[in-house]
Amino acid sequence: MKQEALLAQLAEIVGSSHVLFEGDLSAWELDWRKRYRGKALAVVRPVDTAQVAAVVKACAAHGAALVPQGGNTGLVGGGVPDDSGTQVLLSLGRMQRVRQLDSANLTMTVDAGCVLQAVQQAADAAGLLFPLSLAAEGSCTIGGNLATNAGGTQVLRYGNARELCLGLEVVTAEGDIWDGLSGLRKDNTGYDLRDMFIGSEGTLGIITGATLKLFPKPAARMTALAACADVPAAVDLLTLARQRLDAGLTGFELMSAFALQLVATHFPQLPRPLPNAAWAVLLELSGQDESQARGALEALLGEAMEQGLVDDAVVAESLAQSSALWHLRESIPLAQAEEGLNIKHDIALPVSAIPDFVAETDAALARLVPGARLVNFGHLGDGNLHYNVQAPEGGSAAAFLATHEPAVNTLVYDAVKRHGGSISAEHGIGALKRDTLPLYKSPVALGLMRAIKQALDPHGRLNPGRML
Amino acid sequence: MKQEALLAQLAEIVGSSHVLFEGDLSAWELDWRKRYRGKALAVVRPVDTAQVAAVVKACAAHGAALVPQGGNTGLVGGGVPDDSGTQVLLSLGRMQRVRQLDSANLTMTVDAGCVLQAVQQAADAAGLLFPLSLAAEGSCTIGGNLATNAGGTQVLRYGNARELCLGLEVVTAEGDIWDGLSGLRKDNTGYDLRDMFIGSEGTLGIITGATLKLFPKPAARMTALAACADVPAAVDLLTLARQRLDAGLTGFELMSAFALQLVATHFPQLPRPLPNAAWAVLLELSGQDESQARGALEALLGEAMEQGLVDDAVVAESLAQSSALWHLRESIPLAQAEEGLNIKHDIALPVSAIPDFVAETDAALARLVPGARLVNFGHLGDGNLHYNVQAPEGGSAAAFLATHEPAVNTLVYDAVKRHGGSISAEHGIGALKRDTLPLYKSPVALGLMRAIKQALDPHGRLNPGRML
Repeated sequence: MKQEALLAQLAEIVGSSHVLFEGDLSAWELDWRKRYRGKALAVVRPVDTAQVAAVVKACAAHGAALVPQGGNTGLVGGGVPDDSGTQVLLSLGRMQRVRQLDSANLTMTVDAGCVLQAVQQAADAAGLLFPLSLAAEGSCTIGGNLATNAGGTQVLRYGNARELCLGLEVVTAEGDIWDGLSGLRKDNTGYDLRDMFIGSEGTLGIITGATLKLFPKPAARMTALAACADVPAAVDLLTLARQRLDAGLTGFELMSAFALQLVATHFPQLPRPLPNAAWAVLLELSGQDESQARGALEALLGEAMEQGLVDDAVVAESLAQSSALWHLRESIPLAQAEEGLNIKHDIALPVSAIPDFVAETDAALARLVPGARLVNFGHLGDGNLHYNVQAPEGGSAAAFLATHEPAVNTLVYDAVKRHGGSISAEHGIGALKRDTLPLYKSPVALGLMRAIKQALDPHGRLNPGRML
Repeated sequence: MKQEALLAQLAEIVGSSHVLFEGDLSAWELDWRKRYRGKALAVVRPVDTAQVAAVVKACAAHGAALVPQGGNTGLVGGGVPDDSGTQVLLSLGRMQRVRQLDSANLTMTVDAGCVLQAVQQAADAAGLLFPLSLAAEGSCTIGGNLATNAGGTQVLRYGNARELCLGLEVVTAEGDIWDGLSGLRKDNTGYDLRDMFIGSEGTLGIITGATLKLFPKPAARMTALAACADVPAAVDLLTLARQRLDAGLTGFELMSAFALQLVATHFPQLPRPLPNAAWAVLLELSGQDESQARGALEALLGEAMEQGLVDDAVVAESLAQSSALWHLRESIPLAQAEEGLNIKHDIALPVSAIPDFVAETDAALARLVPGARLVNFGHLGDGNLHYNVQAPEGGSAAAFLATHEPAVNTLVYDAVKRHGGSISAEHGIGALKRDTLPLYKSPVALGLMRAIKQALDPHGRLNPGRML
C-alpha cells in the first residue's frame, strides 16, 4: 500500500512510462557478468536533474533505498539492486545532453547518462580529445565512470576519470542539488567535494552532471611491440621510456607469453608478432609531429636493445598495423573467456615492487595449485596488473574455482598488501569486494569512511550494502 | 591550573625545549604579511608522527584547540592562532625527513615539515623533477602546500599540489594515525580520503607525511616573451599554444603593460624587452630535445604572428636570458609592494570568460574609483589572475584601502561569480575570506562542508575559525 503510494508519486515525477515494475527487467536487474541478479521495487528513469532530485525526495519520504545505475557495465555488482524487491533502481540512462562544449577553456559539460563513446565523439567533433577509454565505452556512462573512478588504457598520460573531471552536479541524499559544475583549473574555496563523490559508487550522492577536461588531439600516434626477457627488464624499459618520452608516452601495456598464447589459440586469424617473447610490451607514443614521434620511438627501442632490456621489437608502419597490435592486447580478456572461467584480480602495486611481487606470487601459486596457469597482463605504466589464475590445463574451470578461489584470493591479496598495493585498482568494491575490504584496509581509514557515510547519508538510503 | 597540566603533558611528549610559551614567539604567532597576530597557549614542536598523535590526544583530553603550522608563509591567516591565548600552535617544522625515494615508481615519501625547496632538491639529486614551484619555496613546507592545495608556476603542465600527491599520512582529531602513504597510481578501494584532507587547511586532520609524484626532468627548456594587443589575443595564443605544444607547454603567464611598467619604475636595472607591449605573455616549453623545442616554439610564434595574435616576440637564447624573463614576472609582486599597498584578488575563471571579465570589470572599477590602477597579471594558462587594484597615482594607498576595499572586493567577486569563477584560486580561505565565502558558495556546498567537519572534528578542535 505504502509502496503503491511511492510508485504513484514516482510516476507523477517522471511519467508512468518511465516507472517500470513489470515484465523482464533484467537489463537493469542483472549485472552484465551475470553474477548478481536483484529484484527492484521499480526501475525509474528520470530525464533531468530536477526529476532526479524529486525522485530522491520521494524515496526519502517513503524510506525507500535507491540504487543508481548508468550503463550497467560495472564489474563488482555495485549497480544492481538486491533481491529484496524494496530498492528503487534509478537509471540515469535517459539523461544524455551535452550541455556545453567550451573549446577555449578545453572543457565540456554533460549529463551523467551520456555514453562514454558519445562524449569522446562530441570532443572529437570539436577537434579535441576526451581521453578516457575502456572496453565498455560503447555502453558505459560518464556518470558511472565517475562514480567508480574508471581507469582504462590512457591513464599513464591523462589520469583516471578523477583527473579528467573539473566539476560535478550531484543530488544529495536529502534530494538537494549541489551545482559544482565548475570549469576551473584552480579553486581553493573549501573542501574537495568533487573528489569525495568521485569513486564513491553512488553511496554518498547521485552524480547527475559533470564538467570534463578536454585535450588537444595528438597529431601523431606511434605504436610498437617489444620483447622483454623478464618482468624486471619490462620495468626498466618503462623507466627509460618515461625518461626519454616524458608526457609523450601514452601507453605501456604488459602481456605475458601465456596471455598471448591464449589469443593465438582462440583467435588464430590474428597476426602473431614476436612469437618467442617471454613478455611483450605494447608502447604507444603520441606527439604533434609524426616523423619526430617515429624517430623518438625508434631511438628509445635502439637504446633499450643496447642496454639489453629489449630483445626484439616491431614498430607499426601504419594505422592498421597499430590497430592490430592494440587488438592483440584487447583480445586477451576474450581469449581468457574462451579458455574458461578464471579467478580475476585487478590489482595495483608500486611499479618498483612488481618484479618481486610477480616472482614471489607466481611461485606461491605454483605451490598452492600445481599446474595453475597465470594470465598476467595489464597497464604496467600505472602499476595495474590483471593477474588472473586459470585452471590447470584440461581441468574443469568450475571445479577449480569452487575449490581454490578463496585460498587463491587470500594468497594474492596478502601478497598485494605486503608490497604496498591495492586489491582494486580500477574496478572498485561494490558488492563483490565489500566483505574483503575490511581485511586489507586500515581500521582508521574504514572509520573515516563510515563517518563520512553517516554524515552524508545518515539513513543509509543510497546504494546500501555497497562498498561499506 | 588545567593549562599547566596540559603544558606539562606536552613537555613530556616532545621535550620541554620544544614547548615554547615565553619570549618572542612572533615567528609563529604573526603571519608573514603581518596582518594576523595571535597569542598561543604554547608553540609545540613534535619531531615525528607519533609525537603529533600524542599531542593531539593530550589536547583533546584537555579540550584545547590546535592550530597546525608549516612554514608560516600562508596568505590568508590560516596558520596563526587567534588572540585568546588558549590555542596550541602545532609547528610541524622539525619533521624534515625524506623517508623514501623510489626512482622506478617515480615517487618520494617525506615528512610534512620538509621545506618545499628541500623536496625539489632531493628529487633533483636523483635525476628527477618535483614540479611544485612558488615564491615561498625556500621556507614553505610540503605539509602546508598540501593543506592549502598550493598552485604556483607549473600548474598548467603538472597540476596543483593535489595532483602531485599520491598518498598521505594524517593524524585525526581523535589522535589516530591514518597511514595512507600509498605510491599507487590507481586505487579504487573506498572514499578519496586523501583529497578530502588536501586543501582542508588543517580543519579536518593534521597532515604529517606525504607520498609525492616525481617526473622525468625535461632535458630542454625554452622561454619566450610575446607581445599581444589585447586579452582576447592572449587567450587565442593560449589555445594555439596548447594545440601545437600539448604537454610541452609548461608556462603561460600574462602581464599587463602597467604591471611591467611598475617593474621598470622600481627595478630600473632590469632589462625591458618589448617595451611597447600592451600585454606580454611569457611562454615556456619543456622537452627532451633542445633543437626540437626551439623549433616548435619558433614555429608557434611565427604562426601566431601570421594570425595576428602576436605583434612581436623574443625567444631567450640562453639560460641566463630565460631566467631574466622569468625574473621580470617574479618581480611584479615586489614592484607592487614598492608602489604601495593595493587590494589583492587571487581569482580563477574559465579561460574563455577572461576577455569579457577583464573588459567589464576594468570598466566598472574605473567608474567606481576613477583613476584606480589595475595590476593585472597571473597564470593565464590556469585561468588564474592576480587582479590587483592600486590607488590612483599620487594618492595615499592607506586612505584608498580604507575607503574602497569593501566595495572593490564586492564588485570584483560579484563579477567573478557571474562568470563562473572562484574568489580564491590558490591562496585558500583561512581567516581572511571566511566571512566572504558564504556570500559566494552555495548553501548546499556549505552544508556538505559543515557535515564533513562535524563528522571528522565534532568538537571543533582543529584550526577553529578557519575556512568554515
